[in-house]
Amino acid sequence: MKVEPKTLPGFMELLPNDQIQFNSMMDKIRKSYERFGFLPLDTPIIEMADVLLAKAGGETEKQIYRFNKGDNDLALRFDLTVPLAKYVCEYYNDISFPFKRYQIGKVYRGERPQKGRYREFYQCDIDIIGDGELNLINDAEIPSVIYTTIKELGFDNFTIRINNRKILNGLFAELDLEKESIEIMRIIDKLEKIGKENVVKCLQDLKIENEKINKIMEFLDIEGDTDSKLQKLQELGFINELFLQGLVELSEVIKNVRLFGVPDTNFKVDLTIARGLDYYTGTVYETFLNDYRELGSICSGGRYDNLAEFYTDRKMPGVGVSIGLTRLYSKLRELDIIENNQKSISKVLVVSMLDNNDRAIEVGAMLRKNDINTDVYLENKKIKAKFKYANRLNVPYVAIIGEEEEENGTVSLKNMETGDQKEVSIDELITILKQD
Amino acid sequence: MKVEPKTLPGFMELLPNDQIQFNSMMDKIRKSYERFGFLPLDTPIIEMADVLLAKAGGETEKQIYRFNKGDNDLALRFDLTVPLAKYVCEYYNDISFPFKRYQIGKVYRGERPQKGRYREFYQCDIDIIGDGELNLINDAEIPSVIYTTIKELGFDNFTIRINNRKILNGLFAELDLEKESIEIMRIIDKLEKIGKENVVKCLQDLKIENEKINKIMEFLDIEGDTDSKLQKLQELGFINELFLQGLVELSEVIKNVRLFGVPDTNFKVDLTIARGLDYYTGTVYETFLNDYRELGSICSGGRYDNLAEFYTDRKMPGVGVSIGLTRLYSKLRELDIIENNQKSISKVLVVSMLDNNDRAIEVGAMLRKNDINTDVYLENKKIKAKFKYANRLNVPYVAIIGEEEEENGTVSLKNMETGDQKEVSIDELITILKQD
Repeated sequence: MKVEPKTLPGFMELLPNDQIQFNSMMDKIRKSYERFGFLPLDTPIIEMADVLLAKAGGETEKQIYRFNKGDNDLALRFDLTVPLAKYVCEYYNDISFPFKRYQIGKVYRGERPQKGRYREFYQCDIDIIGDGELNLINDAEIPSVIYTTIKELGFDNFTIRINNRKILNGLFAELDLEKESIEIMRIIDKLEKIGKENVVKCLQDLKIENEKINKIMEFLDIEGDTDSKLQKLQELGFINELFLQGLVELSEVIKNVRLFGVPDTNFKVDLTIARGLDYYTGTVYETFLNDYRELGSICSGGRYDNLAEFYTDRKMPGVGVSIGLTRLYSKLRELDIIENNQKSISKVLVVSMLDNNDRAIEVGAMLRKNDINTDVYLENKKIKAKFKYANRLNVPYVAIIGEEEEENGTVSLKNMETGDQKEVSIDELITILKQD
Repeated sequence: MKVEPKTLPGFMELLPNDQIQFNSMMDKIRKSYERFGFLPLDTPIIEMADVLLAKAGGETEKQIYRFNKGDNDLALRFDLTVPLAKYVCEYYNDISFPFKRYQIGKVYRGERPQKGRYREFYQCDIDIIGDGELNLINDAEIPSVIYTTIKELGFDNFTIRINNRKILNGLFAELDLEKESIEIMRIIDKLEKIGKENVVKCLQDLKIENEKINKIMEFLDIEGDTDSKLQKLQELGFINELFLQGLVELSEVIKNVRLFGVPDTNFKVDLTIARGLDYYTGTVYETFLNDYRELGSICSGGRYDNLAEFYTDRKMPGVGVSIGLTRLYSKLRELDIIENNQKSISKVLVVSMLDNNDRAIEVGAMLRKNDINTDVYLENKKIKAKFKYANRLNVPYVAIIGEEEEENGTVSLKNMETGDQKEVSIDELITILKQD
């Protein structure tokens, strides 16, 4: 009786060339995070359930993978933020603050699997955690990391949308609509989909006075470039303190985002974004590929006041963002935004036409000594099979060794893209493979 | 009520500089595996229990993390070989054979935690899988990957011990001791610990005839360099076919290991190694750091006839090895074989002595544009706090910006190791940081 070898639905498993492409994206993100001095972290995938669920509830708790092993009530991490909170408290005395950490790892949510939804997926997080306080200027560094990272991934036409939750919360306070704020936010969120008129209708359905609706619409109507938006916010003449603080913060963040080198073409103030998570308290970010808005935000996050309130009385404010790489990759491939013509890990495949592989092995060893990723075909197959292997792997070059080449101490190098083939010395071979 | 932020015992969690060191080892292993053209794979950590346990039993089954989610009987992978077997069968038509893959990932075993034993640990595996057959020469490529990898990790004095299971099995067949072979192997395994005399005693306890014991001891007495060992094996005059086949295979592998460029100082024939796992059928490997034999084998594996017999009737022979990186790292650190003076991710920390960070941010952006990992200290703290941060992170350089430096468009660069400090232009700064 054979068992059917099957992978669970909702778990991404890639073919090698897709995996190479995926890893290359992950490497770029990591490199970009390290460029800004974020320190690597690698926390366990299994934690004690009470530690992991200290903060959770509702949807999260239902989705979690939770189980017993011996006497332990365990769970798989569902994000990288809770493990960070745990880590920062557990190793508080060994950490230098502000603590800039990145973590790239798999997280688990037992959602109903559907296209583009995964139960196991990579998150790529950065956070800056302060001990007691954290300068607002950090909120401006985050967009420069996003900018560098998304550029590194090969995109130019993207916008980092920046807002400050205090402005929205201040708006509701100014209008004495705090109780309705969550419902109003939900309506505002649909603005792009349903249009202004329907937003007004929805607000009327909530029994909000017309005067207040006008104020909200006036707020939503703020248009123009970044600086004129900030100007118009000022001109609303609101006196709510939270609102004014949010405005000061947003202006300061924008000033510094420019100083960090993010061009105005790649960020803008978007007064409508709030981020669903209720723990964001100040600056919030979303990032969109402008040619592919249907992807939704590909990098989101914000500022929070208390990272670890469920573990400690210490106040630990932080700011951070996350890229959901598994979903992003799957969408980019599904929409053919990135192609599937990934070259193999090896630069070259060495194949022997002789009845032994001795010279092929020698040549392979020389190439590897010169830091060139090299595969040597070792099976006793017909030459056709060897080229089929090279083609399916998508190796850029094949180095062929026949009797003549063995005698001359050369190889015949075939460029698999152009089909060109020429006899070259080992030195020439190394030069060509190194430069290309 | 606060929850205590605690990590489960048996789960390695590192401080940032240790993590940097760990990641650097992982990167070196990956780079070395890719140098030989192994393709990356990343299979799920959760699989269906019946898929994962198709082959398992005994100890493995007891240790496994297994649980239900909805109607699904799930388990966490306990090695990377079973997922490879699943993968090769599931994507058989999309894979080019021989399939050379590496996988570096966490695996889970719910062992009783003790020093140096982990419940979550990284394995770094390479395997070459054939479709129906796999040339013996692949068994010689594996030691060259081990050699390159262990060198890359910074070790010179190590020995890859190579044997062939057919020689041992042939020996037992020759002496008509197949039934006792497992017990005899267990005794032979203790040779180094208990000495020859006690091995003889143990064998006598098994009621093995003296004549046969003499043959076994004659076999174990085979000493000398690689070639003379092969010679002496020949001279034993055994006629068992399996034994002779093993001898031919071992000789062929040794010949090709040399061709692959592994020096004789770094490998030897060790007729006593068998590897516990019963699925090895031919060549077997163990690797020891000669100055630290107490670590045990740090890289082991071998040749097997049937990777995926529980999923398919297709014969898929393979050969591979694994490095248990979590255990290796923990041992290397515990025994002070590698030190804990890891430099930080950032090459330089930029600090402002002014009442703002504007120039520091600008300089940071310039350095990052030049591919230099750079941290900018953004908090409003005393200069002492800024240097404390630099020291604790172990950043090699600090670039200080005071009034004079701002005016001159320079920075004062302090080498944190030597304490030297000098004013340099931004161009000089980039040059120094790039070359060091």
